[in-house]
Amino acid sequence: MKVLLVFAHPERHSLNGALRDVAVAELEAQGHEVRVSDLYAEGWKSEVDRADFPNWPQAEALRINAASKKAFEADNLTADVKAEIEKLLWADVLILQFPLWWYTMPAILKGWVDRVFAYGFAYGVGEHSDKRWGDRFGEGTLAGKRAMLIVTTGGWEEHYSARGINGPMDDLLFPINHGILYYPGYDVLPPFVVYRVDRFHQTDFESVAERLRARMRTLATTGPIPYRRQNFGDYLIPAMTLRPELGEPGASGFALHVDTHAAE
Amino acid sequence: MKVLLVFAHPERHSLNGALRDVAVAELEAQGHEVRVSDLYAEGWKSEVDRADFPNWPQAEALRINAASKKAFEADNLTADVKAEIEKLLWADVLILQFPLWWYTMPAILKGWVDRVFAYGFAYGVGEHSDKRWGDRFGEGTLAGKRAMLIVTTGGWEEHYSARGINGPMDDLLFPINHGILYYPGYDVLPPFVVYRVDRFHQTDFESVAERLRARMRTLATTGPIPYRRQNFGDYLIPAMTLRPELGEPGASGFALHVDTHAAE
Repeated sequence: MKVLLVFAHPERHSLNGALRDVAVAELEAQGHEVRVSDLYAEGWKSEVDRADFPNWPQAEALRINAASKKAFEADNLTADVKAEIEKLLWADVLILQFPLWWYTMPAILKGWVDRVFAYGFAYGVGEHSDKRWGDRFGEGTLAGKRAMLIVTTGGWEEHYSARGINGPMDDLLFPINHGILYYPGYDVLPPFVVYRVDRFHQTDFESVAERLRARMRTLATTGPIPYRRQNFGDYLIPAMTLRPELGEPGASGFALHVDTHAAE
Repeated sequence: MKVLLVFAHPERHSLNGALRDVAVAELEAQGHEVRVSDLYAEGWKSEVDRADFPNWPQAEALRINAASKKAFEADNLTADVKAEIEKLLWADVLILQFPLWWYTMPAILKGWVDRVFAYGFAYGVGEHSDKRWGDRFGEGTLAGKRAMLIVTTGGWEEHYSARGINGPMDDLLFPINHGILYYPGYDVLPPFVVYRVDRFHQTDFESVAERLRARMRTLATTGPIPYRRQNFGDYLIPAMTLRPELGEPGASGFALHVDTHAAE
């Protein structure tokens, strides 16, 4: 398979850097082709702004969706964004690796999403009407591909458990896994999370590395999170609410959008 | 009161720009002092990197928490970050205004949080031990102040309802309201959200503006979201899990951390 790893940590000589090396080495040992987008090393620009849309009329107020649509259609996106889009189309698997900062991804990675996930590419795909709200959440440009997160955090696993003060890790990552990755079509694998990294010792490393190698060996076979597909009957359209008869009794919020009856 | 509005939209001539003007005008009409941090206009740097910590040894691998702690203590943070910290200390109320992009804030605003919320200022405050996990979630440097979000989104309110496909808006904003604002001590007011902005018409504007003015008039009196405080008995320390006897039956995830019995 072809794997793109997007790396969003400012320091190569860090736990994240070491885990990246472990992942890449294991993937290559398995015969996969790997490319890395090292956002800090490449000086990635994080802000969506007028410079992203050089053909947008200077005299006109910038409307992001319209500008993104026009630029994508006309192949006028900037070179850095086009290069990332090409990598996403090339890769069978996308891995986003980052430290959890303030309960979500660092700004530079959010800026990669904001800029690369263009209208017509990652959103605004397919028919948009009162009968069909686009090809998304289970369909889209990136359907058939797989994605997963590699995340490090200083907090303890208990702090991110069902009753932990930070909120459950799966819920904190839902806006990324469901809202960013599943949205344009990816099958999203369960995340690889390393806790307590602030007091991480060299002696802890090998067991974490081995757990990561195991995940890299099973990229093709690990079952994805069974999110519900938008356009296959589970949702009322255009309200986009889950049909009243669906969902576990007592379930609410993000958990409703996982089909717990789905075959593994 | 003193109000800081952090504005994170690339286009001044936009719905967000117009709502910002409405908010500022109403606040000033009420006699409040208002300052605006217009992140795009000021060319805000979004990425946490080595340049943020000029005194960190060049030969040493960058450790963000340690570098942030050292720079904050020695008053060596960069001038742009120090200016924002001064504004936060000055303001009684913080308003973050942004368009919801990919279910969370734009990169430039995340970069404001990542860089301004320094160790010793917004986190790493107070005693850290197995008995007390810092002054956070209800205590901290910014305790006694209020914060709220002004958010615009293209989707419909139904899409963000309890059973909506995007997940409930309150849950999507929890990592911001609870994880970024409540964490360093703010009392967090319910967000002001405008839906369906992609097809927003001039005729819709006045009713939204009036709703926003009403919120600006009641900044001091609106009851905050009653998040549970970390260090007042609701959580087991150091596991930081909610005590087994607390929480509504059937509640799970983020909702557990709101005390539904709290007096309004």
